[in-house]
Amino acid sequence: MSVDFFESNREVLEQAINAAATRAYWSPYPESPSPRNYGETAADDARQAFDALLGKDFPLQVSGATGTVGAERSPFGLELGVRYPQVPADVLVKQAQDAMESWREAGPRAWVGVCLEILKRLNKRSFEIANAVQHTTGQGFMMAFQAGGPHAQDRGLEAVAYAWQEMSRIPELADWEKPQGKHDPLRMQKQFSIVPRGIALVIGVSTFPTWNGYPGLFASLATGNPVIVKPHPTAILPLAITVQVAREVLAEAGFPEDVVQLAAHSADDDTARELAMNPAVRIIDFTGSSQNGNWLEQNARHAQVYTEKAGVNQVIIDSVEDIKPVARNLAFSFALYSGQMCTAPQNVYVPRDGIKTAEGRMSFDEVAQALATAIDKTVADAAKAVELTGAIQNEATARRIDEARALGLTVLCDSRQLEHPAFPEARVRTPLLLKADAADERILREWFGPIAFVVATDSTEHSIELARETVVQHGALTLSGYTTDDAVAKRMRQAAERAGVSLSLNLTGAVFVNQTAAFSDFHGTGANPAANAALSDTAFVANRFRVVQTRWHA
Amino acid sequence: MSVDFFESNREVLEQAINAAATRAYWSPYPESPSPRNYGETAADDARQAFDALLGKDFPLQVSGATGTVGAERSPFGLELGVRYPQVPADVLVKQAQDAMESWREAGPRAWVGVCLEILKRLNKRSFEIANAVQHTTGQGFMMAFQAGGPHAQDRGLEAVAYAWQEMSRIPELADWEKPQGKHDPLRMQKQFSIVPRGIALVIGVSTFPTWNGYPGLFASLATGNPVIVKPHPTAILPLAITVQVAREVLAEAGFPEDVVQLAAHSADDDTARELAMNPAVRIIDFTGSSQNGNWLEQNARHAQVYTEKAGVNQVIIDSVEDIKPVARNLAFSFALYSGQMCTAPQNVYVPRDGIKTAEGRMSFDEVAQALATAIDKTVADAAKAVELTGAIQNEATARRIDEARALGLTVLCDSRQLEHPAFPEARVRTPLLLKADAADERILREWFGPIAFVVATDSTEHSIELARETVVQHGALTLSGYTTDDAVAKRMRQAAERAGVSLSLNLTGAVFVNQTAAFSDFHGTGANPAANAALSDTAFVANRFRVVQTRWHA
Repeated sequence: MSVDFFESNREVLEQAINAAATRAYWSPYPESPSPRNYGETAADDARQAFDALLGKDFPLQVSGATGTVGAERSPFGLELGVRYPQVPADVLVKQAQDAMESWREAGPRAWVGVCLEILKRLNKRSFEIANAVQHTTGQGFMMAFQAGGPHAQDRGLEAVAYAWQEMSRIPELADWEKPQGKHDPLRMQKQFSIVPRGIALVIGVSTFPTWNGYPGLFASLATGNPVIVKPHPTAILPLAITVQVAREVLAEAGFPEDVVQLAAHSADDDTARELAMNPAVRIIDFTGSSQNGNWLEQNARHAQVYTEKAGVNQVIIDSVEDIKPVARNLAFSFALYSGQMCTAPQNVYVPRDGIKTAEGRMSFDEVAQALATAIDKTVADAAKAVELTGAIQNEATARRIDEARALGLTVLCDSRQLEHPAFPEARVRTPLLLKADAADERILREWFGPIAFVVATDSTEHSIELARETVVQHGALTLSGYTTDDAVAKRMRQAAERAGVSLSLNLTGAVFVNQTAAFSDFHGTGANPAANAALSDTAFVANRFRVVQTRWHA
Repeated sequence: MSVDFFESNREVLEQAINAAATRAYWSPYPESPSPRNYGETAADDARQAFDALLGKDFPLQVSGATGTVGAERSPFGLELGVRYPQVPADVLVKQAQDAMESWREAGPRAWVGVCLEILKRLNKRSFEIANAVQHTTGQGFMMAFQAGGPHAQDRGLEAVAYAWQEMSRIPELADWEKPQGKHDPLRMQKQFSIVPRGIALVIGVSTFPTWNGYPGLFASLATGNPVIVKPHPTAILPLAITVQVAREVLAEAGFPEDVVQLAAHSADDDTARELAMNPAVRIIDFTGSSQNGNWLEQNARHAQVYTEKAGVNQVIIDSVEDIKPVARNLAFSFALYSGQMCTAPQNVYVPRDGIKTAEGRMSFDEVAQALATAIDKTVADAAKAVELTGAIQNEATARRIDEARALGLTVLCDSRQLEHPAFPEARVRTPLLLKADAADERILREWFGPIAFVVATDSTEHSIELARETVVQHGALTLSGYTTDDAVAKRMRQAAERAGVSLSLNLTGAVFVNQTAAFSDFHGTGANPAANAALSDTAFVANRFRVVQTRWHA
């Protein structure tokens, strides 16, 4: 490699490995879009760069394209009109195979160096990516910047750190000397080579294209596999920029650009399945619906398949000091990006005979009302609220609010359409909060979007058992518990551990159940139906490469 | 735990982790059955203990048994007549679930401590296990002792070391403090719990019940999963002793004995599938036929499935200094346990226009003849030879020799029946060596047993390509290459790395291609159809447990 990207990024790698070991707070990528972090002109420059992309061919020089594709429309109303090169699935695979030859020979140090440099340059383009994420996913700008930029980069770096840690513990050479009593010892030399599995496919999601896409992309790339990035047809741009940066770094390092390729395609074609079922594709990272994820797990048997799918996230309220900060915290979680997060809470379990508070018992209806009031307050100021809720990514989610209303349940807080001061065409909705009974099986599916249920249970024990069983049957990425009783907290934890879901206890401040921090929080557990892997741990990287040894007499 | 088996075995654990990191030679279990290692009376005591088991109910106190089962017959002629308790599959699963409750709560330190103590006690019973392995598998005594005893224990310990290494890198508690500019930092405490996946199933093989069984057994047990050990109906005894030892240690440590259970069953029933398809079984380790292994991979989708199946092991002869030590080494590999090893070489590729040696060119026929002569010499002394070949484990393997003879190929060295001085009824066969052409597709399947082919190829390049393609299509656990040319050695290594098979170069001494050393050699790569995992690496253990975190405001 002409440029030693490993050496120039070594310090951040070492810090990342250390952070993942201690699981303390750490990030090399500032989450504040302050000019102090990114430069005085960063925001304006990026906006201009973003505007310059609209209505044009995206600047990506590729081979094998048969035309262009692209029909992205911003949930805030803007028609993007960006056209991406369209390369047939079999051509992408062929090009990846060709590119693999020199990439696989380069070895872990080169793979990891290239990955670290890509991440560093992605960070510099965080503002541009933020615009791209905002106008494809519907996230408010701040979330698009943080989750789509530095937090996604954190998750990518985390995967690279785990990959390096695993690969670097295999010695390149070993001397083996076995005593033979009075005879000379047996002496062998052994060489251990890290070999990639083959072509990796990343299937992107419409809501968090970079945050959910980077772990798989970087885990596979860092372990020597060429990667085909297949974005969701409604959220191509953030991953197109990512692929552009990756190819730029690959070229500088002397590798074929096709080590990372973009598989842009239109919404109604079969590209995902065609790629997934190609036997040369040996690793698949998928984020999306349970239907598609389960299909991949069942059918793509030639590949290692890592999926994050749907689930039913739950909150158990047993007892509180004061309901207000609890309700505020949960209202924020409901409203944040209009609940379009795989981690957003949906079912809030409250005993039908109420809960204990520092000021005496509080009835079920009072708890429900407190939550509704907190939502009202959270979205009262439309201009501020739209920054929190963003816009609804697609029509199906908007329709789901109507479906939920039609369930015939008591409406605790209705979903309203908000006027966005900057984007009058934006599809903005506030959370819908409904009252339900634990026996109502309709709440045991995912209602993706700004839809939540306050659910009457027989008791906290019933709440815990319902939560546990729902995680086991339907999956979940988060579980939240509120209790002032240590014994109850322990039972919640035991239920979470048995069901295999992470637990947040008594969140009342500025940490929200739907957010996880890279290097510290695992995202998902891989132990329930919502996801078969966690972001990131050793299991997420260790099977993306294999070790082939050669031995000979010394 | 009343007894701290972790502390008392900590040193061996630390040494094992260190050995796996350096991949230098190491073992805590002496492979020589010398009285100095195991005591003056060990051999006799064990023989008496073994004899005392014959024709009786095996001393294992279990619940849920509906009767006894057992029809083992030694390949050396002895009727074992040991009767094992038979417990229905669903009862085994139920009992494992009950036992899991306290086992899962005990945590990594207890799990690993119990595993280390079991291994220590298994080592003390190596002679008894050697008798059991000999008279179920047909291995000669020395191999039964080494491979069935200390080497199997090494592989078990290796899995425990990897498991501990992975689990212990997750901190139990973490403080997380995120700066908030001028405001107070956000402070969270996080607790990380290692949780087992569920019930683990180990499906044993008839030829190496302990060596192939221990890695999965100990990897699953050390990560908190209760284990059901299902031996092959013709090789129950070695694993029954293993389960007996495990239950003894579990009881002493205060855990339910049913954390490890034996699923003895008769040859013609459906116990394996019934257990494998029980949704509570979340991990399966399988060694056996490709047919059964592939079936499990396709159908047991609720479980992590680790398989070692059939393959076609190959030898490429390009050039040699001297053919004699090459032929001697290969003849030993053919004869060792009559080729009944998943690692035994089968196809030997030699260019049809011969090879280069230090003394000039050697024709194909001369190479073939040298191999045949070496086999003749290796098995010339029947009394010595039977210790090397052991006996044929089952009739199907004996019949396969006849099938191979009926292929109509030139016989280079015929398989002979040898008289065993100690066991007149023993089924002993010497290797059959046939001459074949590279175009003959009948050699591209596994001919399990003492059957090998010297295969005429167009050139060494052709040999390498044929070997590569055969590994990719049919799988292999070993590849062996002979060349005096560094450039050819490099091409062999590249082919091995691309196909995903370990390579042994120029073995001419006392190291044989069919043997791997724990802590240093990986057994299998997990990168070709012969096995989807390697023994042992991080990937073999990292997905047998999951991490569930709980977080709260500090």
